Amino acid sequence: MKLLKDRIRKDGVIKEGNVLKVDSFLNHQMDVELFHEIGLEFKRRYEGEEINKILTIEASGIGIACVAAEVFKVPVVFAKKTQTKNIAGEVYTSKVESFTHGRVYDIRVAKQFLNKEDKVLIIDDFLANGKALEGLIELINESGATLVGAGIVIEKGFQVGGELIRSRGVRVESLAIVESMDEKTGEIVFRES
Amino acid sequence: MKLLKDRIRKDGVIKEGNVLKVDSFLNHQMDVELFHEIGLEFKRRYEGEEINKILTIEASGIGIACVAAEVFKVPVVFAKKTQTKNIAGEVYTSKVESFTHGRVYDIRVAKQFLNKEDKVLIIDDFLANGKALEGLIELINESGATLVGAGIVIEKGFQVGGELIRSRGVRVESLAIVESMDEKTGEIVFRES
Repeated sequence: MKLLKDRIRKDGVIKEGNVLKVDSFLNHQMDVELFHEIGLEFKRRYEGEEINKILTIEASGIGIACVAAEVFKVPVVFAKKTQTKNIAGEVYTSKVESFTHGRVYDIRVAKQFLNKEDKVLIIDDFLANGKALEGLIELINESGATLVGAGIVIEKGFQVGGELIRSRGVRVESLAIVESMDEKTGEIVFRES
Repeated sequence: MKLLKDRIRKDGVIKEGNVLKVDSFLNHQMDVELFHEIGLEFKRRYEGEEINKILTIEASGIGIACVAAEVFKVPVVFAKKTQTKNIAGEVYTSKVESFTHGRVYDIRVAKQFLNKEDKVLIIDDFLANGKALEGLIELINESGATLVGAGIVIEKGFQVGGELIRSRGVRVESLAIVESMDEKTGEIVFRES
């Protein structure tokens, strides 16, 4: 997706440890007009697929998922990371190891919001080692819902997540796949689509 | 907002301890078509006001804020609750006491995304004791930005937050104000608008 890649080149900042900061438009400040274009592109890629629900994970996936869901005309469910009084006891859970935060946490979705009639598209901002995506797929499998595929905004192609998940037969559509990035020169190389 | 009140009456569940569960359409599963109507209503109420940014707080505020931001044609910034490698050291912070989770946490916004040129509308799903809203207002004050007002989806009118914040001269527009609710009968009384 050229618009996205241009924006990453323009506003993305490469930091030590293979961190790509895109918090001026994607995951802290959020450019919702860009999100709408992202939603349209996910819709184009999954054209013809039956999708009745979008699943994402808090926090930064929620904005993209909601704006994209308007294009798909389906509801969003987001997996929660923290235990709360407001979720009933009946939940699907899985464990996710966070690259960003360096710890393991539980994610959960109330059972009433995922079931075997659902045809689910997962949407998230980043795919790196694939742990969050694996966790979401596990929730879908637990529920008996059908996983249609995943829509990822930025995939770090030099990390294992994308290959790992695709090798399991899951369709993953990433709008920008970073092959390499150089924190000294600021250069970002994207995989050819 | 009649559409919203009808939906709360239809799908809201009253739980012990003055908890109103609206997680089937507002803050776990999210009805983005309703969010769009909510965005239009916020826009109508703040018609004529100059607003160039929407501020919210993770997690459940993000979806509503992003869909509303499409109506306002402005970016969203969300205050983060957890420390992350991906935020630079230069942040505005304040403390929030959570009613739902029963603990105090820090919220933060990177300084580069809030500044004295900004005219900010705060959007959040709930207003109860007002702690989250107070925290967001503090971030705005720290930054020197102008607070235009707050747009709240559901206010618990029987808790102190709304009165407290309005008494400080802050404009608060709540789309549904719950005056009372009865967990035994399931009855919800809304304040007349």
